[in-house]
Amino acid sequence: MSPSLVANADLSPVTSGTVKGRVASVYSELQTSRIDHALPLPSVLKNPFKIVDGPASSAAGNPDEIAKLFPNLFGQPSALLVPNGADAVRSDEKLKIGVVLSGGQAPGGHNVISGIYDYLQDRAKGSVLYGFRGGPAGIMKCKYVELTSNYIYPYRNQGGFDMICSGRDKIETPEQFKQATETAVKLDLDGLVVIGGDDSNTNACLLAEHFRSKNLKTLVMGCPKTIDGDLKCKEVPASFGFDTACKIYAEMIGNVMIDARSTGKYYHFVRLMGRAASHITLECALQTHPNITIIGEEVAAKKQTLKNVTDYIVDIICKRAELGYNYGVILIPEGLIDFIPEVQQLIAELNEILAHEVVDEGGQWKKKLTKQSLQLFEFLPQAIQEQLMLERDPHGNVQVAKIETEKMLIQMVETELENRKKGVNKGQFKGQSHFFGYEGRCGLPTNFDATYCYALGYGAGALLHSGKTGLISSVGNLAAPVEEWTVSGTALTALMDVERRHGKFKPVIKKAMVELDGAPFKKFVSMRDEWALNNRYISPGPIQFTGPTSGDVNNTLLLELGAQV
Amino acid sequence: MSPSLVANADLSPVTSGTVKGRVASVYSELQTSRIDHALPLPSVLKNPFKIVDGPASSAAGNPDEIAKLFPNLFGQPSALLVPNGADAVRSDEKLKIGVVLSGGQAPGGHNVISGIYDYLQDRAKGSVLYGFRGGPAGIMKCKYVELTSNYIYPYRNQGGFDMICSGRDKIETPEQFKQATETAVKLDLDGLVVIGGDDSNTNACLLAEHFRSKNLKTLVMGCPKTIDGDLKCKEVPASFGFDTACKIYAEMIGNVMIDARSTGKYYHFVRLMGRAASHITLECALQTHPNITIIGEEVAAKKQTLKNVTDYIVDIICKRAELGYNYGVILIPEGLIDFIPEVQQLIAELNEILAHEVVDEGGQWKKKLTKQSLQLFEFLPQAIQEQLMLERDPHGNVQVAKIETEKMLIQMVETELENRKKGVNKGQFKGQSHFFGYEGRCGLPTNFDATYCYALGYGAGALLHSGKTGLISSVGNLAAPVEEWTVSGTALTALMDVERRHGKFKPVIKKAMVELDGAPFKKFVSMRDEWALNNRYISPGPIQFTGPTSGDVNNTLLLELGAQV
Repeated sequence: MSPSLVANADLSPVTSGTVKGRVASVYSELQTSRIDHALPLPSVLKNPFKIVDGPASSAAGNPDEIAKLFPNLFGQPSALLVPNGADAVRSDEKLKIGVVLSGGQAPGGHNVISGIYDYLQDRAKGSVLYGFRGGPAGIMKCKYVELTSNYIYPYRNQGGFDMICSGRDKIETPEQFKQATETAVKLDLDGLVVIGGDDSNTNACLLAEHFRSKNLKTLVMGCPKTIDGDLKCKEVPASFGFDTACKIYAEMIGNVMIDARSTGKYYHFVRLMGRAASHITLECALQTHPNITIIGEEVAAKKQTLKNVTDYIVDIICKRAELGYNYGVILIPEGLIDFIPEVQQLIAELNEILAHEVVDEGGQWKKKLTKQSLQLFEFLPQAIQEQLMLERDPHGNVQVAKIETEKMLIQMVETELENRKKGVNKGQFKGQSHFFGYEGRCGLPTNFDATYCYALGYGAGALLHSGKTGLISSVGNLAAPVEEWTVSGTALTALMDVERRHGKFKPVIKKAMVELDGAPFKKFVSMRDEWALNNRYISPGPIQFTGPTSGDVNNTLLLELGAQV
Repeated sequence: MSPSLVANADLSPVTSGTVKGRVASVYSELQTSRIDHALPLPSVLKNPFKIVDGPASSAAGNPDEIAKLFPNLFGQPSALLVPNGADAVRSDEKLKIGVVLSGGQAPGGHNVISGIYDYLQDRAKGSVLYGFRGGPAGIMKCKYVELTSNYIYPYRNQGGFDMICSGRDKIETPEQFKQATETAVKLDLDGLVVIGGDDSNTNACLLAEHFRSKNLKTLVMGCPKTIDGDLKCKEVPASFGFDTACKIYAEMIGNVMIDARSTGKYYHFVRLMGRAASHITLECALQTHPNITIIGEEVAAKKQTLKNVTDYIVDIICKRAELGYNYGVILIPEGLIDFIPEVQQLIAELNEILAHEVVDEGGQWKKKLTKQSLQLFEFLPQAIQEQLMLERDPHGNVQVAKIETEKMLIQMVETELENRKKGVNKGQFKGQSHFFGYEGRCGLPTNFDATYCYALGYGAGALLHSGKTGLISSVGNLAAPVEEWTVSGTALTALMDVERRHGKFKPVIKKAMVELDGAPFKKFVSMRDEWALNNRYISPGPIQFTGPTSGDVNNTLLLELGAQV
């Protein structure tokens, strides 16, 4: 019961290169018990290894442009670790490695760092690991801390990014590349591990290219992080944090489902994090079997309107009312309205109008809208109209992320039900809104995420030690026991395409969207009609660290790997 | 991984006295594993027992009036179960018992029913247990299902109330008492167990009195249920569900805390369920150590205004900004504004005005407000003003429960920070709102709630078998191992006071509020200044059913029992 004191890093602002000191931070009993949880390694990482290069790589799209953008790195092969009689790397080499956390939190980040550190301790004793503080800004400003055993220890298997914190700055301008270079030189870095999402890994590759072009010895390795699950490909089967976050959301959804069934009078509209892609929503649906699930990618593919989405929901609500069910659970991805073409059009017009016109109370400004956008605007609930008009970012643009889509849909469903004036008797529809987001980003990592991250970090250490750069740490064969997991590095340029911005080609790692012909979505489609009218709710319950379910892996990953779930 | 099929009750509407049939319902692996979780019993329930009566009881207040309202039951003693050489009850007696779930869901309700059922199986073989469907309405309409081993089995240790569902109807009018009596006679009931909160247990006692006054054999036993934790007294140390709900909320709060610390840029305002009393908020604070916690009872005792509460928050935010912390976590009880006298006054005036006046756009109607209320109204953020004007219940009254207090406070803090124009530099305050409510009512019960509820139900069976009525099942000595828990029944009249309503005395069980001189609040007060400026966040993590923390009991209960936490 009693929380125990654990030495922990003080997280108050520090001056460049120093840590103010340590304070006692309080850990819960469960957090404490997790610190010493043993982390199994893939067998290839437990023994002497060598690197086997694959064939020359290309790009995800526009290889000619990618080749121009990455003249030093384009085409480099993937690097697979395989067992060897004797280590191909020199164990007497002392490396200086930096690590940085970039972007939003994802459970498991601390274990990636633990993995890098343990690799260096095990295979390159005497090496030094620097943690850049507060994200990429820490690299540019040379704000770092030396990570020691004592420093890292209390963060093992813990959630959050608070060991060194994160940030959303990007290294973009020539001046910023210069700063990063100065830091690499100043600290005499042999390598840098960038733990981040698609943008951060793109940035990592640009840094790798830059360092190589300057003949710097600093190698750069990426690591796939994001709870959204939208950084993945054949070689990188999962981004870390997705497993934990989905299980936390699914616990809450399962509880709400039992509540809905017990009360029998509420429709719970649950908005879930994941703005660009709907993987989280899909995975939560597979785990919990809600009555209605909206997948943004499907809405976009079918070019659906908000009215279509509303009608789909109302049709099911009416059919359920006939069956005597005036309750249900509905999952909605955070980014839903980004997927609806007509909404995008309306927002674009609003941004244009609001930038140049005075909005008169009489509504004369609305005449500037196209007919279709005006129709849509009038169709929206008043509260959403106001949000669209009032919530602007510093550039004057509508802040789509701030729109509470779940509340918008509740109001639109209410209106549509009133229009139909039948189906649901006596106005029995009651909507309850939920948003599950922040709760899932910093949970204690599941056993899967804890082990996966440790292998990602340990593998990144091995690849840097082998002299590789511009790769993303890749751990595969994840449906097999951990011993059989494969460890490799995938050329970051192989994941890239270009986008044209301000007249220039910019390299991007395309976000992995929900594939409508992929196994997870097909599984969902095969079951959703059954879930809609019957109640097939599953309540997964809280994440367990020992005993039943403690070894479970999410459905999306298993289905994508061809396993039956 | 794969969910398993478990036979489960169909929850579609049924006609009186029948169950439509059974359908296969899908259980998660964890739910399935919980079904067979063994439930230990207090040793007094495992062996032959007899009843020892305590001294004559009185009432919590106005004993003369309670005596008049309960002429047959007033003054009856508590009944303590003690070991005996041979059972004082006849094991060949076959009982007919009814059970009903009343009011909002709380984790563990199914285990109370399992406990009653198992008692009857163990000690009065051949007895019958009826479950009234949909709450007290099921009694009045004689809608019930016979609960068998097969029926109950899949609900063991499961969350929710969906075995027989619940409802909020009350048995109040003479006609309704007549209906309940008809059901008792029709089913030849020897006893009825009412599982509910303060209102439902008051109702149970009125029923017990009614049945006795009509010389009916039907005995009535209450059971203390509510996640809010506000039904408790010396003899009934806890209401079930509180332990599980608080741990679910604390998991989420702990995750949000780590997120706040990792990001360093948000103040998370978390509203927690518990409208009448702030026990949940207090317990979650003790489990997680937030920077700021508002306890409604303290606000009321100090006669604080909304401005006082806002200032308290803003003062801490400014001090934290000076220390370099532009983030934090703030807990707020759902019922906060009910505790603020000036808000109560404003709402009363608004109810009066809106019932009789036309609200003109020019705001002339505001002249009807007293000066103090007008001042407060103008002080409120516009969105809250609108909620107060627009959200009315069917009686035209302001719906206080629908007011999003956490969002209101964020806006008020923003305004106050702007007024001060210092303390926090460059408008760095960013508020994020959360409401944790429905997620906690139907979670899988913790081991504590599972065991406690089973004992409550098993004890209720024993008390009915012993011929007792008008008692509430009471399980005590909860800080000791389960074997040593005490089992008794407490006279419901002893918990009662009267309230004057419509010129008549009505019996009420007073809600147990947070005691400002109680151990939990004092512990909180002794630590909150430290939590405010330093970051002493604890992240309890998800509820565990095996391994570390799986045997934990909440802080409030332990502190109230005099234990150190």
